[in-house]
Amino acid sequence: MLVSKPSKQDITKASMQIEPYTHVTPVLSSELINTIFKSELFFKCENFQKAGSFKSRGAVNAILSLDKKMLDHGVATHSSGNFAQALARAASILNIPSYIVMPENAPQVKVDAVIGYGGEVTFCTPTLADRERTLTEVIGRTGATEIHPYDNYDIIAGQGTATLELLNQIDNIDMILCPVGGGGLISGTALAASYFGKNITVVACEPLGADDAYRSFKAGEIIPSVNPQTLADGLLTSLGERNFPIIKNYVDNIVTVSEESIIKAMKLVYERMKIIIEPSSAVTLASIIENKVDVTNKRVGLIISGGNVDLKKIPF
Amino acid sequence: MLVSKPSKQDITKASMQIEPYTHVTPVLSSELINTIFKSELFFKCENFQKAGSFKSRGAVNAILSLDKKMLDHGVATHSSGNFAQALARAASILNIPSYIVMPENAPQVKVDAVIGYGGEVTFCTPTLADRERTLTEVIGRTGATEIHPYDNYDIIAGQGTATLELLNQIDNIDMILCPVGGGGLISGTALAASYFGKNITVVACEPLGADDAYRSFKAGEIIPSVNPQTLADGLLTSLGERNFPIIKNYVDNIVTVSEESIIKAMKLVYERMKIIIEPSSAVTLASIIENKVDVTNKRVGLIISGGNVDLKKIPF
Repeated sequence: MLVSKPSKQDITKASMQIEPYTHVTPVLSSELINTIFKSELFFKCENFQKAGSFKSRGAVNAILSLDKKMLDHGVATHSSGNFAQALARAASILNIPSYIVMPENAPQVKVDAVIGYGGEVTFCTPTLADRERTLTEVIGRTGATEIHPYDNYDIIAGQGTATLELLNQIDNIDMILCPVGGGGLISGTALAASYFGKNITVVACEPLGADDAYRSFKAGEIIPSVNPQTLADGLLTSLGERNFPIIKNYVDNIVTVSEESIIKAMKLVYERMKIIIEPSSAVTLASIIENKVDVTNKRVGLIISGGNVDLKKIPF
Repeated sequence: MLVSKPSKQDITKASMQIEPYTHVTPVLSSELINTIFKSELFFKCENFQKAGSFKSRGAVNAILSLDKKMLDHGVATHSSGNFAQALARAASILNIPSYIVMPENAPQVKVDAVIGYGGEVTFCTPTLADRERTLTEVIGRTGATEIHPYDNYDIIAGQGTATLELLNQIDNIDMILCPVGGGGLISGTALAASYFGKNITVVACEPLGADDAYRSFKAGEIIPSVNPQTLADGLLTSLGERNFPIIKNYVDNIVTVSEESIIKAMKLVYERMKIIIEPSSAVTLASIIENKVDVTNKRVGLIISGGNVDLKKIPF
């Protein structure tokens, strides 16, 4: 079956068009961590990306891909997290309005960040139904174009540019580990690995307490995320309709990890690599800690998705 | 007056000989921080250096500069902090013994790190007198060569390599800001800026609660550090005899900063740059926050000295 998806050219084009507005993020390694796991691990540091996460790649690509006449009315989304900031920032680059629907319990620091980038925040109650209803109202009022955080091909192509970059930075990667939440990052990652790499194994990593992607992958159909419980607050959402077919066809495996391993992985990265990563980014190293993937003697890329974390709540 | 000091060739040689054993650390910038301070700030990230600080540069250089027959008996020092780890690691590279005298109240994590690198730890009471007495005993017993953490020309040349690297990485630096404790890093920095840069202003930054270098600089003679009080636990020591003349002749100014500004600077770096730095490293940005140096429209290098911090004690 032919899977609808961004093409190789879509990801190459995304990489070129976002380049003036995003960072080529560094790839870091730790000799000690490599020794512990008998492998060569390459951390692709999207925690250093603009607005603190890979979401800036997709957001900038989506906005730059809009028709000129759509731009005037701005863009809208609902998000409590990194995509809210990324979209507001991307809109501010083109000097167009952004309307962000946020749950009233969203962290103040994230609300402030959106406002700091010039976004207009509309609050709603923290349910998916009210988020969608409020977004529909905002779009009705403003004529803004909705940009979905992950269920959108321009977003997927944008997120794939992180892996395109990684493969330009590091030779002979055998495997890539990547977190999975809604599926924007993993679907872009898997496509880019297939287009620009050679026989790279792609593994999605997910918290056991939010294992809807794992269960969906096994079942062959999207199983929604219900009442997920995990520190990794970027990985709570259900898979998108456009993301799942790409995951089914281009991801080799999905593994789950415990909260304890997520915390261990965060601690190891903070203490040994001296970088700040959010819990969602720690699921990849956690899967190595738990021996869910065999990385022995392999060259492995780990997509560190972001660094937006409340430092008062570091869990160790 | 001719000042005794490492030559340009000494620093170039140090850079070449430590290269296989140390990292070329990245230089990071933050658009937001640049906007706040209307300048271009380049953070030289020695927090990513081997053993977590610039101390690895000097330690490796000092050991590689020893006579072969001195090597057999190993090296010794007293240190409660980053130099202990750096020297133990450097000794392990050449497979020679290292004897580290540590105060009995040194953090367990630092003791463990030294032992992890194969160092032999001898505990003493936490006074300078007992540290020196114990070190003399250890040297009498072992025949090891004492490597002073900063009052040593090979150490100074080694620390200067961070600035040599920075100037190769970033063009047209106008100013360099650098912490000052015992003076090893700042003296190497100032020499390297003079040898390899063009009209670079070098400013040493120091906590107000440990302002012995500031007072020594004003008085023209070394004034010992007495009962210093600061979060910046790497900057408690008095200036070295070999360091002070270099500082007097090659450093343009010394400024002091409050504890409040050190905390503000740490918070800004953690939240916006997503990197972990120790309080001692924050005095440079703190001096900008306090307007103690005028960086407007300048290209400024900040030496981020290390990242060894107890994450349970982050002061914000």
